[in-house]
Amino acid sequence: MTDHIQYDDAAKALKLLDQRLLPCREETFECRTTEDIVYALQTMVVRGAPAIGVTAAYGCHLAALEVLAETGGEGDWKKKLETKLEIIADARPTAVNLRWAVVRLKDTWDGMPEASLDDVAAVWLEMARQIQQDDIESCKAIGRFGGALFEDGDSVMTHCNAGALATAGYGTALGVIRGAIEQGKNIHVIANETRPFLQGARLTAYELHKDGIPVTIACDNACALLMKKGMVQRVVVGADRITANGDAVNKIGTYGVAVLARQHGIPFYVAAPLSTIDRDTPTGDDVPIEDRTPREVTHVGDVQICPTDVPVYNFAFDPTPNELITAIITERGVLKAPYSESIQKAFEEAGL
Amino acid sequence: MTDHIQYDDAAKALKLLDQRLLPCREETFECRTTEDIVYALQTMVVRGAPAIGVTAAYGCHLAALEVLAETGGEGDWKKKLETKLEIIADARPTAVNLRWAVVRLKDTWDGMPEASLDDVAAVWLEMARQIQQDDIESCKAIGRFGGALFEDGDSVMTHCNAGALATAGYGTALGVIRGAIEQGKNIHVIANETRPFLQGARLTAYELHKDGIPVTIACDNACALLMKKGMVQRVVVGADRITANGDAVNKIGTYGVAVLARQHGIPFYVAAPLSTIDRDTPTGDDVPIEDRTPREVTHVGDVQICPTDVPVYNFAFDPTPNELITAIITERGVLKAPYSESIQKAFEEAGL
Repeated sequence: MTDHIQYDDAAKALKLLDQRLLPCREETFECRTTEDIVYALQTMVVRGAPAIGVTAAYGCHLAALEVLAETGGEGDWKKKLETKLEIIADARPTAVNLRWAVVRLKDTWDGMPEASLDDVAAVWLEMARQIQQDDIESCKAIGRFGGALFEDGDSVMTHCNAGALATAGYGTALGVIRGAIEQGKNIHVIANETRPFLQGARLTAYELHKDGIPVTIACDNACALLMKKGMVQRVVVGADRITANGDAVNKIGTYGVAVLARQHGIPFYVAAPLSTIDRDTPTGDDVPIEDRTPREVTHVGDVQICPTDVPVYNFAFDPTPNELITAIITERGVLKAPYSESIQKAFEEAGL
Repeated sequence: MTDHIQYDDAAKALKLLDQRLLPCREETFECRTTEDIVYALQTMVVRGAPAIGVTAAYGCHLAALEVLAETGGEGDWKKKLETKLEIIADARPTAVNLRWAVVRLKDTWDGMPEASLDDVAAVWLEMARQIQQDDIESCKAIGRFGGALFEDGDSVMTHCNAGALATAGYGTALGVIRGAIEQGKNIHVIANETRPFLQGARLTAYELHKDGIPVTIACDNACALLMKKGMVQRVVVGADRITANGDAVNKIGTYGVAVLARQHGIPFYVAAPLSTIDRDTPTGDDVPIEDRTPREVTHVGDVQICPTDVPVYNFAFDPTPNELITAIITERGVLKAPYSESIQKAFEEAGL
């Protein structure tokens, strides 16, 4: 699945498969403005760190078109464009790929000081396409490296959706599962439903079922019992941000799954491209954790499940400390502890 | 709250607050037959081990009335009544209070071999009322013993609903919280929402909020992060069955919460009356775990959250091993490890 993020050049619109409506409805959400992009990111029309990065890159292109329409590329267009880039970069706080993508495009712009707004828009569209294409290649490489770690017959638990839908395609955690299957192994997936936004039940189950990969859904609460019963051989998850020391910030609940995996002697893998690694942030505890609207907890669709006026905690992510992580699977290979060193080495080898 | 299980003598009906519709609708479900009782138990109109026991006791009385209507207390009424008792006792497999209540009534019947069906029905109604009254007293004693363990200012996490709604009133785990508050301590409750049936979000939050006790709802996935952030000082839960060695079988997810509490150095208490302790079952792994309908996972109300045709695990309970339990709080006092001994002693002192 790679058609869930499509840039339509004729319409000058980014067409996103609206992930809020899955698995029951497949509808397209069209972004034509910075405002549309921010709305799509914040309400999770599109989510998943790499997919957020790709969307942000196209968003910068749309921002350039928008400023072009407003200013004709004259006057204070640079200031206006910078403001819009900041708005996109600030849309969500946790995933590093968002800022990473915006900074990459901004750096390129900084390197072409004489360029017209037209030129900038054109260059950014090419860059966005390249980021999208690179992400698919990254995921496939992650899949090859990670798939080799799995055994034929494994039941693999995953939390949230780090699949095709969370990336430009193929997926990180689900990329590892696809990689193992392409290597001829039988793999059964246990998708934790992943409250509150239910990315596991709604998205992971949807995309695996669509691809004919055996998947069973379980409530997050079932995790410990399934592990105790010997029904889980491995856990693989994605990450929204990996810090310099190898801590992995991912969807709320991941840290608990990692503690339970350790308790039951089950390997716990994090699959993510190097672009998810933020070497400027020392540890997971230094990453801002998004506190989202209570409504995600109090309602499922239009069904109210909490009494009115009772407060809610809705932290969207948690940090998993590096000592609970068996390995970090990247497009440059499998990183092992001590992660500060293996991450450093991977970046050097990648020339980053 | 003690009016959620009310026997109406004039109407010859057990009136249950329909817990499936809470917190948004307060409706009464009337049971007049064995079939009604079994339906109410199986679909969770009423749930919670002690409340199940009370309901079953009234159910036996209704079964007697039903057989009386069928046979006039002549012919093979004994056989018909025995069959109905078995149907009630088998309605759900995990909570020991269900069979405990039915066996208690059956034993009394066995002790009055000459009694007419009329007599049996009358005696059982009195016994059911006594079980209901005793349960409230038990809960208050649990509250006194358990409340003394808590500190002023504690944030206490609970899983599922072991409150007034799960008992005849006052609650076991929530009884401990009520006990601490009656002792003048400020307590804030964190209610895990408790997927799939959402007893925490729907029921615990409802009854605490109604009583003016500060409560915040969190997704089950938030448990580990809240503990890590120092936002949880204690955990207290109920139990559906405690085995001879002190393992506690409770709502799915409890075992995971217990592992996480241990990981973060947080005391983990189980609150339950002695009637929840099943000395005939050696360990938690010997308790049958109910595997419930996938629909509880795939739908919330009428909202479908899983793709059609994807299988689901829906184990309703899990066993928490005794080594993760700081203490078991009963109406006879606080039991500590080694539980085989402290349980034995408590039963002896209670003359059971």
